[in-house]
Amino acid sequence: MATLIAPSHYSPVEDAEALQKSFKGWGADDKVIIAILGHRNVDQRQKIRKAYEELFQEDLIKRLESEISGDFEKAVYRWMLEPADRDAVLANVAIKNGSKDYHVVVEIASVLSAEELLAVRRAYHNRYKRSLEEDVAANTTGHLRQFLVGLVSSFRYEGDEINAKLAKTEANILHESVKEKKGNYEEVIRILTTRSKTQLVATFNYYKDEHAISISKKLLDQTPDDFHKALHTAIRCINDHKKYYEKVLRNAIKKFGTDEDGLSRVVVTRAEKDLKDIKELYYKRNSVHLEDAVAKDISGDYKKFILTLLGKQD
Amino acid sequence: MATLIAPSHYSPVEDAEALQKSFKGWGADDKVIIAILGHRNVDQRQKIRKAYEELFQEDLIKRLESEISGDFEKAVYRWMLEPADRDAVLANVAIKNGSKDYHVVVEIASVLSAEELLAVRRAYHNRYKRSLEEDVAANTTGHLRQFLVGLVSSFRYEGDEINAKLAKTEANILHESVKEKKGNYEEVIRILTTRSKTQLVATFNYYKDEHAISISKKLLDQTPDDFHKALHTAIRCINDHKKYYEKVLRNAIKKFGTDEDGLSRVVVTRAEKDLKDIKELYYKRNSVHLEDAVAKDISGDYKKFILTLLGKQD
Repeated sequence: MATLIAPSHYSPVEDAEALQKSFKGWGADDKVIIAILGHRNVDQRQKIRKAYEELFQEDLIKRLESEISGDFEKAVYRWMLEPADRDAVLANVAIKNGSKDYHVVVEIASVLSAEELLAVRRAYHNRYKRSLEEDVAANTTGHLRQFLVGLVSSFRYEGDEINAKLAKTEANILHESVKEKKGNYEEVIRILTTRSKTQLVATFNYYKDEHAISISKKLLDQTPDDFHKALHTAIRCINDHKKYYEKVLRNAIKKFGTDEDGLSRVVVTRAEKDLKDIKELYYKRNSVHLEDAVAKDISGDYKKFILTLLGKQD
Repeated sequence: MATLIAPSHYSPVEDAEALQKSFKGWGADDKVIIAILGHRNVDQRQKIRKAYEELFQEDLIKRLESEISGDFEKAVYRWMLEPADRDAVLANVAIKNGSKDYHVVVEIASVLSAEELLAVRRAYHNRYKRSLEEDVAANTTGHLRQFLVGLVSSFRYEGDEINAKLAKTEANILHESVKEKKGNYEEVIRILTTRSKTQLVATFNYYKDEHAISISKKLLDQTPDDFHKALHTAIRCINDHKKYYEKVLRNAIKKFGTDEDGLSRVVVTRAEKDLKDIKELYYKRNSVHLEDAVAKDISGDYKKFILTLLGKQD
């Protein structure tokens, strides 16, 4: 379930006018920005953007960028983009940031459905005049490249058929590869990048039954190089992306100084999807409400905006 | 330009009825089948199929399969499928046939546009309940796997921007890889599977200017293992798919006993697209009209059907 609270009745023109008014004078009235945009769903935001453009011959997103700043600006900017375009931007930034951010690429490629991932690839073409896989491939090498390119290029079958015999065979292949240091990574890459998610979950379950440890935990025995980290992230995202996101949030908040990028990314991308479930998992795991943890960790307009997306009643 | 001659006025119901009548008695009236289906474009054929189903509660394609046989049946069957579904079938058969048919997979992945290839991947899901890349990957290994999976998973950028500096750099990378036996194939695979076709043609041109030989010819110096053959086919398809198809036809006809699969594949898949151009290239290269070469080589209803698709006036 989503956390976003958006009214069914609203007026794109009135919203656009209120936003424009809020930009007048020195600095924007951030309360207005949060009160409006923090309570509009993806279609409503696009209609407001369109109305704003028509009324004031100006791109609302560009104007917002010039009016606000810091983590607040970054979060609002991402919130304003259409989901596929937003993920294209997130992927591009992650590729440019290099190995410390590859998990973002893995997330996008492993959590989205086949058609959603494809929409991101289309958005990437439009925005960067190159393909997503092209940029991933040009910035990586070896097994990591093969794995990341395979993930972002995948168009997985999404039926719920399970081939139990295949799950067993491939769980064993994964086990053989993961237990040795010089494993047959070609096969691990093949399995993780091409099989349907339903089939993979069956494979992971069989692995766990057989070896009394999950394959993602087993992977942590290895030297955690970029390739193994990417494997680990992909398996977690495919197995249970909500649990994965709970951990991203936990790590983001636990950090000295907060990882605002991680926090914003999860909140902005999941607020209209399943952030309520992720919040529940967070509470279950940390015995603290996510809103309370966030409220203690960040401040100002950024805090107000994130809490709004987290479903805090005004 | 296409070779197919299809009337703008036709009646799906009358066509369906005429076909059904032709099936009566011992054996079908193949003349009727050819006269109708050999002169209908893809939309018309789908409408006839639908009308037939509604009128006679029977799938026209299944009925055709039971009424006719041999190469004629195979060609008509493929002709009746929608293009994306047909390519899904061609790819699946090629994967099952193994290395001697991998060029068909390379063709589909390299000749089609990004959206057309995607439609094939969707059709593959629907038909086989698996992904195309999944089946390719499960049936190949090593560099060949990496290359074929990369090709079928590609969603290339299709703008006409050319980065001349990049073309130069990557032509050199290709040259270094191709001239040594133990080349850096990872880079060759990256370049050929991710760059836009426009960019690749610029790279191939630069290669030719610099080395006074085309990269596809240069590849033939190598031991022609399956991987090198696939590289060769992909480069030819990306560079000039019409010239490539001319050669497929030339080889199909030249063979002792004709390669009917190759002949039918090119004629059926290109008749509504650019078979006229391919025919012209054929004449230019062989000083014989393709229709005459085909007429001498094959016979019966199969011959009549192929000649009809080649644009022969009745």
